[in-house]
Amino acid sequence: MNIHFKKVAVIGVGLIGGSLSRIMKEKGLVSCIVGIGRGIENLKAAMEIGVIDEYTSDVRKGVKGAELVILATPVNSILKLVEEIAPCLDRGAIITDVGSVKEEIVNSVEDILPSHLFFVGGHPIAGTERSGARASFSTLFKDRNCILTPTDRTDQGALDKIKSLWEEAGSDVTLMDTRTHDMILSTISHLPHIVAYSLVNTLLNMDDFENILSYSAGGFKDFTRIVLSSPEMWRDIVLLNRREVLNSITLFQNSVERLKGLIEAGDGEKILDEFKKAREIKEMSFFGKDHNQTG
Amino acid sequence: MNIHFKKVAVIGVGLIGGSLSRIMKEKGLVSCIVGIGRGIENLKAAMEIGVIDEYTSDVRKGVKGAELVILATPVNSILKLVEEIAPCLDRGAIITDVGSVKEEIVNSVEDILPSHLFFVGGHPIAGTERSGARASFSTLFKDRNCILTPTDRTDQGALDKIKSLWEEAGSDVTLMDTRTHDMILSTISHLPHIVAYSLVNTLLNMDDFENILSYSAGGFKDFTRIVLSSPEMWRDIVLLNRREVLNSITLFQNSVERLKGLIEAGDGEKILDEFKKAREIKEMSFFGKDHNQTG
Repeated sequence: MNIHFKKVAVIGVGLIGGSLSRIMKEKGLVSCIVGIGRGIENLKAAMEIGVIDEYTSDVRKGVKGAELVILATPVNSILKLVEEIAPCLDRGAIITDVGSVKEEIVNSVEDILPSHLFFVGGHPIAGTERSGARASFSTLFKDRNCILTPTDRTDQGALDKIKSLWEEAGSDVTLMDTRTHDMILSTISHLPHIVAYSLVNTLLNMDDFENILSYSAGGFKDFTRIVLSSPEMWRDIVLLNRREVLNSITLFQNSVERLKGLIEAGDGEKILDEFKKAREIKEMSFFGKDHNQTG
Repeated sequence: MNIHFKKVAVIGVGLIGGSLSRIMKEKGLVSCIVGIGRGIENLKAAMEIGVIDEYTSDVRKGVKGAELVILATPVNSILKLVEEIAPCLDRGAIITDVGSVKEEIVNSVEDILPSHLFFVGGHPIAGTERSGARASFSTLFKDRNCILTPTDRTDQGALDKIKSLWEEAGSDVTLMDTRTHDMILSTISHLPHIVAYSLVNTLLNMDDFENILSYSAGGFKDFTRIVLSSPEMWRDIVLLNRREVLNSITLFQNSVERLKGLIEAGDGEKILDEFKKAREIKEMSFFGKDHNQTG
């Protein structure tokens, strides 16, 4: 479907919010984008490079008259922002987010949202290590997955528009329920982060760790990139998706314990089976794709 | 020191053995290199591309008259090969290896080695995902760490020669005892492999894993590369270095359990501390180096 918005408010003009803004402008999907945030330097930069048309750090003023509000802020800020902006929005305005956790966010937003406003939960699975408006680019979401999580309270018209927006960004859009989203993300993204943090800290807790790490090669280095992500963001994600994250950790602990048992027992045959099994991953469809994305 | 060998026998002309052969030839450190192995096609390829001067699959014949024998074969073959070649070698011949585990190999080799032959345990921390003679290249070891593990039974002259050989390859050579080597490698290389295998298998054991993995992005993908290494090689490594590997796994399990407890308790402050701590890794000296090596 063809979409066009007179005014879009983007709260959080960072990598995600900035890239989506670029796309809306490049594709002519919007007449005016207001960038909203607390970091004035970043908003000024976003203006300079043409990512947004105007900016303010006054959230209520910024969203006034917007047909669409994009919440591209940390997961634990979303409910508070919806509470703050809801009284300022016109009937029929659509709010959407890009958070890595959906059930808790979508449920709590729907609980407080007035019936004349629409919310669509979203999560583009894309990113880089960089952040800020200057890091944004209009192909960030191209050929990436974007998950939308409608509920039985989601307005179909609003959902269609948000779906079209992400399709304009080049994403493969999938609709699923919030719990399925959170389970999938806990396994493919949240658990790997927990594991990487645990592994890196295992080494950092050792005596003489600087000497030990000076011999480090591929085996360990592969784990180090993702622990450089924002600690605050990851704290919020694991706490908001606590139930699924704990469940994933338990499954992983069982997997480690089983392999440890085989090593203790010196069971070469079963160890080989475990190691061979892991190579099946090579046959998975995602494997050939570009590795330069985070979730 | 200047080194030159009339005849060198390289058993296992793969990525490591082939690259070391190339270096010896390019630097003029050797008059004749005999490639020895079971894969005739690989040896023929090594001849074609000039990595070796002659080849045979008869180990005893191949090593005859060699001043230096390089064992670039799987870790669990080394003791057997030393037993096999020892009766065929001339007084003063040096044997060295490139295995990822040292204590068990070096101790068992020294137990059976006749006193007129010399053994120097070695481990270049370098590699790529590719294998075979055609994958070899003469800068593989440049600026990489190479650990040599002399014991009180190691001949100083033989050690000096092997040290010079790796320095000619451009490596940073460090001497350490076998246990320290095995402890370091268990943490920076063997444990990360165990963790990656466990994580990948956690996902592969899930119902609907193909669908789940189709959403996979950076977080998980970072772990998938190293599970494609040879399963047989890794089985042998974890079994030969069992004590240190089990110790590393236990430390890691404690680390996971601690983080899990903080998430269960919803202790955002301490979770943040853990995540922030991991970022210290960024300050480690190795971090800026090229990531394209395995250990």
